Amino acid sequence: MPLQSLRLKKNEEKRLKNGHLWIYSNEVDTQQTPLKQFSIGELVNVEASTGKYLGTAYINPNNLLCGRLINRNPQIAIDRSFFVHRLNIALSLRQRLFTQPFYRAVYGESDGLPGLIVDRFGEHLAIQITTAGMELLKSAIIDALLKVFSPTSILIRNDTRARQAENLSDVVEQAHGITPQTLTITENNTQFIIHPFSGQKTGWFFDHRVSRQQIARYTEGKRVLDVFSYIGAFGLQMANHGASEVWCIDVSGKALDELQVNAQHNKVADKVTCIEGDAFSAMTELKQQNEKFDLVIVDPPAFIKKRKDHRAGLKAYQKINEAAMRLLSKDGILLSASCSMHLKTSELQDCLRAGSRHLDKTLQIIEQCHQGPDHPIHPAIEETRYIKGFISRVLTNR
Amino acid sequence: MPLQSLRLKKNEEKRLKNGHLWIYSNEVDTQQTPLKQFSIGELVNVEASTGKYLGTAYINPNNLLCGRLINRNPQIAIDRSFFVHRLNIALSLRQRLFTQPFYRAVYGESDGLPGLIVDRFGEHLAIQITTAGMELLKSAIIDALLKVFSPTSILIRNDTRARQAENLSDVVEQAHGITPQTLTITENNTQFIIHPFSGQKTGWFFDHRVSRQQIARYTEGKRVLDVFSYIGAFGLQMANHGASEVWCIDVSGKALDELQVNAQHNKVADKVTCIEGDAFSAMTELKQQNEKFDLVIVDPPAFIKKRKDHRAGLKAYQKINEAAMRLLSKDGILLSASCSMHLKTSELQDCLRAGSRHLDKTLQIIEQCHQGPDHPIHPAIEETRYIKGFISRVLTNR
Repeated sequence: MPLQSLRLKKNEEKRLKNGHLWIYSNEVDTQQTPLKQFSIGELVNVEASTGKYLGTAYINPNNLLCGRLINRNPQIAIDRSFFVHRLNIALSLRQRLFTQPFYRAVYGESDGLPGLIVDRFGEHLAIQITTAGMELLKSAIIDALLKVFSPTSILIRNDTRARQAENLSDVVEQAHGITPQTLTITENNTQFIIHPFSGQKTGWFFDHRVSRQQIARYTEGKRVLDVFSYIGAFGLQMANHGASEVWCIDVSGKALDELQVNAQHNKVADKVTCIEGDAFSAMTELKQQNEKFDLVIVDPPAFIKKRKDHRAGLKAYQKINEAAMRLLSKDGILLSASCSMHLKTSELQDCLRAGSRHLDKTLQIIEQCHQGPDHPIHPAIEETRYIKGFISRVLTNR
Repeated sequence: MPLQSLRLKKNEEKRLKNGHLWIYSNEVDTQQTPLKQFSIGELVNVEASTGKYLGTAYINPNNLLCGRLINRNPQIAIDRSFFVHRLNIALSLRQRLFTQPFYRAVYGESDGLPGLIVDRFGEHLAIQITTAGMELLKSAIIDALLKVFSPTSILIRNDTRARQAENLSDVVEQAHGITPQTLTITENNTQFIIHPFSGQKTGWFFDHRVSRQQIARYTEGKRVLDVFSYIGAFGLQMANHGASEVWCIDVSGKALDELQVNAQHNKVADKVTCIEGDAFSAMTELKQQNEKFDLVIVDPPAFIKKRKDHRAGLKAYQKINEAAMRLLSKDGILLSASCSMHLKTSELQDCLRAGSRHLDKTLQIIEQCHQGPDHPIHPAIEETRYIKGFISRVLTNR
């Protein structure tokens, strides 16, 4: 059955021509093609005002962000075979990058599959479908994943906030096989036991893999503080890289319990101290106890979830980084990261600058951190870049 | 002898308080402290309009950029002992970072030593002094370098364009010992024979050390094109990392002769093909000959040297990157870098985006490149960040 056309207003094709994949409802020529004639998630041929085919998109007529381009060739049907092709392209990059099968295998728009996330934990896949359009294509996607990855299991972790915007309900379901309650993955030099059903997102954040490699060279013999440690992705890798002590702060007792299990699994439990509580309070207390660390990691959850939180978020980033600098010993190293899409890299840098000035310290940025290569950036879609970080040296002025 | 005061106008202390080190002549209260009362390079106490001490600076009364802060403590004299202290701080970072003594040991403002560059080639130092203020302090600097590094030789490569702005003449001089005509350095996995007297800048660019590590993982068995190869810093490291062939383009026959010597030194000469000529023409010719490469490096000299070159430079960056993409085989890798301080990272990204769209290719940014950690970034001085780059995967659309 041929697809219906979605006609754009005059000159509204520019973003798509420039490589972006998103269509906003105010760009649609609703005289020619009223949005209400489309069903939720329907595939359409997107046309310029001249009638020229621009691409195939799925749409959500109820949303401001009402469509996402999934292909630019009208000859190709969006079916299992299409997904097999895209997944193979995505997989071949990861196979080139990594010797072990632990990675984000599909990163949405950047892999030409808007609305789909696939994390690979060895023989097991955990996926997220975040748009109504992809939800309708779910069975083709699952079939294609089975064909390309031959996984033992596929778990759908559709309990993600992103789905609310598309009016999709939260659900965790087993799409194939039986996913174990815990899985063991390897990242860099460390094994982690993770919980695919109950962990945050899909159970693991692969996005800081490279940052964790970068910081490793500063770790030998050092006393480390990992703030917002979650289950210890940074801290335990640093323990394995020769840190003398690793202190971890997290608000979740459950995460810290899992961290301890992982510390034992890696035989570094004797180096690890956990502090359950709010990061700001815990750091204030450490300061009062006159604790000092050679290296502090600050990788908080997004302080800026929405644009309107920007100002308060910026303050929070500066405050937490100042607190970290106060705990650094002389000539210490600070890894400061942010996963807020709404925080610019330059803004994070400015928090570091302002914080160091406020404390009369000299700060040198020695490395910059980014999401790993299994989270490629789409050059036209700034939203695909969310991780930013700096490794800085913090000197006490004389 | 106490230093003279340089008084700023009201509210003009803000940049310095925020951490920046530069003073512009229009910020000086010339009623109170006329610039002409100062001699070129003189050290002064910089004061806010209130009279509050802000820092010690050296000044060049003839320049728009008329002063650079060198310290923020009035108790500390700017003498040999001051430089020994700063150099020790700079050195301790590099010793922590690198196992071998080949690195930029001092990177100007970022190491608290505005106007001074020190590159370390084992027992030999090559330095550049780019401001009149530092020129006046030369003997204290040399004494301090001798104390801290105990070098066999110090070569002053003061034949750099930056000196023109300070009305300093070009001169290459031996400040200590005898620097050999050629030196052998090691970067990552490769040895290079370099020419400290006649090579560009100090004879070697350490700034892309990390990019050259990053690209190594994509190199095994691949056919590589190194555009603007100079003496082969990228190309030969890739040859040593298992590239099957390395083609190098440079406009300088002398650079390519040195590249060949280095290729032989590393026993990879059989893999290397050199093309002497303009990069744009050479790439067009390769295209006409239907040559294809799995991996292309584009690391041109600054196409934007001054702000007014911005528009033309941007076009040149897009053109050269398009030419590179045309030469890529299916699913190829492009490393595209820029050392133009006036080119924003986002602008380079946009050149890649536009180029790939123009050629109807899909581009994924998989890694970002920065100057190495021996070129730290001063968080208040954006000018200290000059290297930017992207490693991208370029796919042919079906």
